[in-house]
Amino acid sequence: MMNIFLLLALLSFTSDAAVNDFCVAELKGPDSPSGYQCKPPKSVTVDDFVFSGFVAGNTTNIFHAELTSTVVTDFPGLNGLGVSAARLDIAKGGAVPMHTHPAATELLIMVEGQITAGFVTPFEVYNKTLKPGDVMVFPQGLLHFQVNSGKGKAIAFLAFSSANPGVQLLDLVLFGNSLSSELIAQTTFLDVAQVKKLKARFSGRG
Amino acid sequence: MMNIFLLLALLSFTSDAAVNDFCVAELKGPDSPSGYQCKPPKSVTVDDFVFSGFVAGNTTNIFHAELTSTVVTDFPGLNGLGVSAARLDIAKGGAVPMHTHPAATELLIMVEGQITAGFVTPFEVYNKTLKPGDVMVFPQGLLHFQVNSGKGKAIAFLAFSSANPGVQLLDLVLFGNSLSSELIAQTTFLDVAQVKKLKARFSGRG
Amino acid sequence: MMNIFLLLALLSFTSDAAVNDFCVAELKGPDSPSGYQCKPPKSVTVDDFVFSGFVAGNTTNIFHAELTSTVVTDFPGLNGLGVSAARLDIAKGGAVPMHTHPAATELLIMVEGQITAGFVTPFEVYNKTLKPGDVMVFPQGLLHFQVNSGKGKAIAFLAFSSANPGVQLLDLVLFGNSLSSELIAQTTFLDVAQVKKLKARFSGRG
Amino acid sequence: MMNIFLLLALLSFTSDAAVNDFCVAELKGPDSPSGYQCKPPKSVTVDDFVFSGFVAGNTTNIFHAELTSTVVTDFPGLNGLGVSAARLDIAKGGAVPMHTHPAATELLIMVEGQITAGFVTPFEVYNKTLKPGDVMVFPQGLLHFQVNSGKGKAIAFLAFSSANPGVQLLDLVLFGNSLSSELIAQTTFLDVAQVKKLKARFSGRG
Amino acid sequence: MMNIFLLLALLSFTSDAAVNDFCVAELKGPDSPSGYQCKPPKSVTVDDFVFSGFVAGNTTNIFHAELTSTVVTDFPGLNGLGVSAARLDIAKGGAVPMHTHPAATELLIMVEGQITAGFVTPFEVYNKTLKPGDVMVFPQGLLHFQVNSGKGKAIAFLAFSSANPGVQLLDLVLFGNSLSSELIAQTTFLDVAQVKKLKARFSGRG
Amino acid sequence: MMNIFLLLALLSFTSDAAVNDFCVAELKGPDSPSGYQCKPPKSVTVDDFVFSGFVAGNTTNIFHAELTSTVVTDFPGLNGLGVSAARLDIAKGGAVPMHTHPAATELLIMVEGQITAGFVTPFEVYNKTLKPGDVMVFPQGLLHFQVNSGKGKAIAFLAFSSANPGVQLLDLVLFGNSLSSELIAQTTFLDVAQVKKLKARFSGRG
Repeated sequence: MMNIFLLLALLSFTSDAAVNDFCVAELKGPDSPSGYQCKPPKSVTVDDFVFSGFVAGNTTNIFHAELTSTVVTDFPGLNGLGVSAARLDIAKGGAVPMHTHPAATELLIMVEGQITAGFVTPFEVYNKTLKPGDVMVFPQGLLHFQVNSGKGKAIAFLAFSSANPGVQLLDLVLFGNSLSSELIAQTTFLDVAQVKKLKARFSGRG
Repeated sequence: MMNIFLLLALLSFTSDAAVNDFCVAELKGPDSPSGYQCKPPKSVTVDDFVFSGFVAGNTTNIFHAELTSTVVTDFPGLNGLGVSAARLDIAKGGAVPMHTHPAATELLIMVEGQITAGFVTPFEVYNKTLKPGDVMVFPQGLLHFQVNSGKGKAIAFLAFSSANPGVQLLDLVLFGNSLSSELIAQTTFLDVAQVKKLKARFSGRG
Repeated sequence: MMNIFLLLALLSFTSDAAVNDFCVAELKGPDSPSGYQCKPPKSVTVDDFVFSGFVAGNTTNIFHAELTSTVVTDFPGLNGLGVSAARLDIAKGGAVPMHTHPAATELLIMVEGQITAGFVTPFEVYNKTLKPGDVMVFPQGLLHFQVNSGKGKAIAFLAFSSANPGVQLLDLVLFGNSLSSELIAQTTFLDVAQVKKLKARFSGRG
Repeated sequence: MMNIFLLLALLSFTSDAAVNDFCVAELKGPDSPSGYQCKPPKSVTVDDFVFSGFVAGNTTNIFHAELTSTVVTDFPGLNGLGVSAARLDIAKGGAVPMHTHPAATELLIMVEGQITAGFVTPFEVYNKTLKPGDVMVFPQGLLHFQVNSGKGKAIAFLAFSSANPGVQLLDLVLFGNSLSSELIAQTTFLDVAQVKKLKARFSGRG
Repeated sequence: MMNIFLLLALLSFTSDAAVNDFCVAELKGPDSPSGYQCKPPKSVTVDDFVFSGFVAGNTTNIFHAELTSTVVTDFPGLNGLGVSAARLDIAKGGAVPMHTHPAATELLIMVEGQITAGFVTPFEVYNKTLKPGDVMVFPQGLLHFQVNSGKGKAIAFLAFSSANPGVQLLDLVLFGNSLSSELIAQTTFLDVAQVKKLKARFSGRG
Repeated sequence: MMNIFLLLALLSFTSDAAVNDFCVAELKGPDSPSGYQCKPPKSVTVDDFVFSGFVAGNTTNIFHAELTSTVVTDFPGLNGLGVSAARLDIAKGGAVPMHTHPAATELLIMVEGQITAGFVTPFEVYNKTLKPGDVMVFPQGLLHFQVNSGKGKAIAFLAFSSANPGVQLLDLVLFGNSLSSELIAQTTFLDVAQVKKLKARFSGRG
C-alpha cells in the first residue's frame, strides 16, 4: 500500500511549501504592518524560537534601571505571534520613568524586591506596591511608571501583547529631539526654564 | 409563481433577524472590547446614522481650543465600524496641548487658518505648519499637539481609526489626579516645584 | 555615569532598527493584505505624513462631481493605520452615483451647501438631507449615493476606515467592462435596450 | 497521589468556567460586532455544532434559484469562528442575480451541472464557466452573479469567510425599498421608466 | 464634457495602481503573517480566482482516505481572503485520523455516504453520525476526526476560515519526527513499546 | 476663564461615560468572542489590574507539575488586552505532558532549574534544553511539552498572546472523555489495550 498521506507530507516538506503554522522573520528584509516576511522553511531551526540573553541588565545610568528586551528582532520565531518579553532590573532608588507602549499592553510579573507601579488617566491614577507573587497589567497606550520602593534591587519580567512593541519614554519624546523650548512650553504648560533644563539633560540642546 | 426570494426577505425582515451589515449600538447597555451590542433592527432609523452637532466649539478655556467629537456615543450607527470624527476650533494664540489617543490614529484636515502640528518620538519630531489643502496623520498612540500659528482662528476636521477613541491630555494624566508630587517628579525628572504648580492648575491639589 | 538608556536609544536610532510605531509605505514595492512594506526609518521625514493636495476637484464631468482622495498611495505615512480621507465637490444638480467601498466604512462631514445622501438595503433606504453641522456614516460595503439637493455647489469631507479604500461605481462595474448585454440583463432584470444604452455611455461597447 | 491537574479540570468543568475554545451563540440575546454572547458551557451539546437542513431549496421563484444558508443563527456553534456555508440550487435557465456580501468573501464549489459565474470591477469582468471539479472565489464586497448555463439543474456549495454574512441583491436594494424613482434614476443613470417597471416588480411601488 | 471620473478610472487602470479590492498572491515571493504580496494588477486574470482540481483523491493509503485541498498556493486569488476548501474522500472502513488545524476552523458539508465525526476537549467529546444534508463545524485548533461509518465510500466538502490552513496529523507530529521514544513516552504516558511500534510505522525510526 | 476642557472631563467622569482605554470584565455576565462586557467605570479600581496569587503551585500530582494561571477570570483588567500569564512549577523528574493552546502562542521564560522543552510538527521537532536566561516561544496551536531535565525543581514564567487561553492536554482530550476505545484506536492507530489502559488512568472508563 502506498503511503500517499505520508508521501504528500514528504513532498510538501522537500518542495519548500510554506510552513503555515509559523512564519519565522526574515530579518534581512523589511518589516510590514503584519510583520516580517517568512524565512524559507528549510532554513528554520529551533534556535529561531529560542533567545538566550534574558539576563540582568546594567543599571548604571540616570534611571538606575535597565530593560533587556526580547522582541522579534532578537528571536525571529516571534514574528506575527503577538507576544514578546523583557526583563526589568531596577537598582535601589531607581525607576523606569513615565513611558508608553503605543501599540501594546504590558504585563508585569514580580520576581524580586518591591516595585511601586501605576498607570495614569485623566483624574485617576491606578497604582499599587507590588511584591513577588503579584502581577499587574498596564493597558495599551497608557502612560505608566515603575519605581523601586524597596530596600534592595528589584527585578520583574514583562510580557507584551505584540511581537515588536515600541517604547516611548516621556522625557525623551519631550526633551530628546529638536522641538523648540517655546513650543514644548506652549503645549505642556511647563515653564520655559524647566524645559531648557531638561532638554540640556536629555539631548544637549537648550 | 411564488416569490420565495422576496418572501424570505420579507420574513427575515419581519422576524427581527439580525441585520448583518451593521450593528447600531444599544447605548443603554454596556460596551465590550468589540463595541456595544446591536439594537433590534426594527428600532433602527436613519437618525442612528446621522449626527447634527458638528459645529464650532466654545474656545473660552485655558487652551483657547475646543474639540467637538462625534463618536459612537453620539451617533450609535458608528458601532463597530472603525471610524469617527471631531471638529477642532483653536482661537488665535491657542493650542491643543500634548496628548495621545492610545488606540486610534488621527487624521487632520485643515479647514481654515494655520496650524503648526506635530508628533514626537525619541530623538525625532515630525512637525509641519499646515494650511487649508493640507492633511496630516498622527500615528496611533504617539504624543502630538496642534498650535494655532496664524493670525486668526483655526479650524480643522479630524478623523479617527476607531469608533470610540479616547483622548489622554498629558497635563491631565500627569497633574489632574492624585499621584503625589514626589512620585511625579521622580518619574518625569521635573522639579517638585514645577509639579506642584501644575497640579494646582489642573487639579487643585498641591 | 553612563547614559545607557540614552545610548541604547541612539544605537537603536543609528543602527536602523525598525521604527515600531509606524511603518511608512515603500511605494516602489508591492502591496500586501496588511499594507506596503516599511521604508527604512532613516529615509522617513515629516512629508511622509503630510499631503498637500486636498483641494477642490474639477466637477466638469458627466456626474458634475469630483472626488479628491488622499490614501496611502498619496502619503505613505498612512500605511497600516486604518484611516484615509477624500474631498467631495458636487456642482449644482450633480451627484455621486450609486457606489460601494467593499472594504471600508465612509464618514461624510458636511462643509458647504446641501447634500441628500443615503444607503440602501433590501426593503430599506436610510437617507437624509444634510447641511453643514451634519455628519453621516455609510457602513462598509453598502451601496450609497450623494446628491447635491441645494441651490449652489456642495462640499463635504469624507473619512474612510481603511488606508486604501477602493471605490466601485455601479455604472462602471455593470456597464464599463466586457460583460455581455445579455448576461447583464439576465442578472439584473434590466431591459437589454437599457443595458446597451448604458454600455454605450460608460464603455463604448454595445 | 492527588490528581490535582485532573481535579482542577473537573472543578473547572463543574463550576461553569468559560469554555475558552469556543463560544456557542446565545441566540436569545443580541448580536455584537464580534458575535453573540456565549451560552453557558453546561448547556452546550453536539447539536450546537451540527445543522441538518442543508438540502435542495425550492427554485420556484422569479430567479429559478434558491439559496439555503447555514449561518450562526442556524447553528450557534459557528459563533465567532469566521466561516459559514450555503447550498445553491439553480433550475435550468435560472440565475442568482447580481449581489454582494458586504463583509464576506464567497467560495463556490461546483457539485452538479454547469454555472457561468463572475464578479465585476470597473473595466474588468472576471467570469468563467464552471463544472464539477471547479472552485471559484468572489472577493469580499464585490458584485457577482451565477447563471445556470447548462442543460439541466445546477448545484453548488458555497462557503463564506464570516459566521453571518449578509446578502444584498442589487434588484432588492435598488428597487425593493421606498427610494423614489427620480432619485434612483439620478444616481444610476437608468431611465425613469425602467426604474418604475422594476420597482413594480420588486416592491409594488411605482 | 470631460469624463473625469471615467478618465481617472482609466488612468488608474493603466498606471498599475494597486487594485485595492483583492490582492492576488505573488507565489514566487515569500509569505508573511498576513499573506503573500500582491501580483501586479495587469497580470491578474480570472484563472487566479478559479481552481479546477477539486476531484476525488486517491484513497489507497494507510488511512483509506484522501484530502484534496484548494488553498492559496493552489489558486492565488484566495490571498488574504480568509477562506479555503478541501475535498475529503474516505473509502469504506477508512478514516481521517485525529488532527488539528492550528489556526483555522473547519466546516464539513456531507456529500455522500455516512461519516461519524467529532472533536474532543477535556472530559467532553462532541461527535455525531452525519449524512448528506448535514453540516458540522470543528472549532479552530481542536483535535478532531472523521470516520467512514457507512457501507460504501464517503465524500464531504470542507471549508476553512483561513486561506492557508495547516494540518497537523497527530500520528505524524508524535511519531513522524526525531523526538526520542523515551521523551514521547514521558510526555504522553504511552508505553515505550507502543511508541516504538508507531514510530516504525510513521517514520521508520524506532 | 471657564475651564471647559477640564469641565468636560469632569462631566465625562461623573456621567459614567465609557472609559475607552480599557474595558474591565464584568465577570458576572457572559463572555463573547471579543471578551466580557465592560464593568461600569465608576466601579473600576486598581485591584482589577493586579493579581496576587502568582505563587508556586502544588506539584503533588501524576505529572509532578503545576500551572498557576492568571487569566481574565483571575483579574478582569486583562479583558480584551491580548495577554495573560502563568507560573509553571515542575518537580524533579516531572513534566507538563503534550498539550496545545488552540488560540494562543506561549512564551516561556526560564526562572530556575533546567527544562527540556519543544514543539512538534510533521517530520520536525523543535526542542531545546533551557536554563535561566533562556526564553522560548511555542507558536499558537502546536503540540508542545516541557520536561524537567535537571537535578532539582524547575520554575518558568509563561506569557500567552490571549487574555483567556485554553489548554488542551492530549491525555485528557484523548482518554478523559466518553469516546469509545475502538474509535480512539481507529483514529490514532494506538492498540486498543493501550487505549483502555490510559482511559482507566485519566477517566476511569475502560
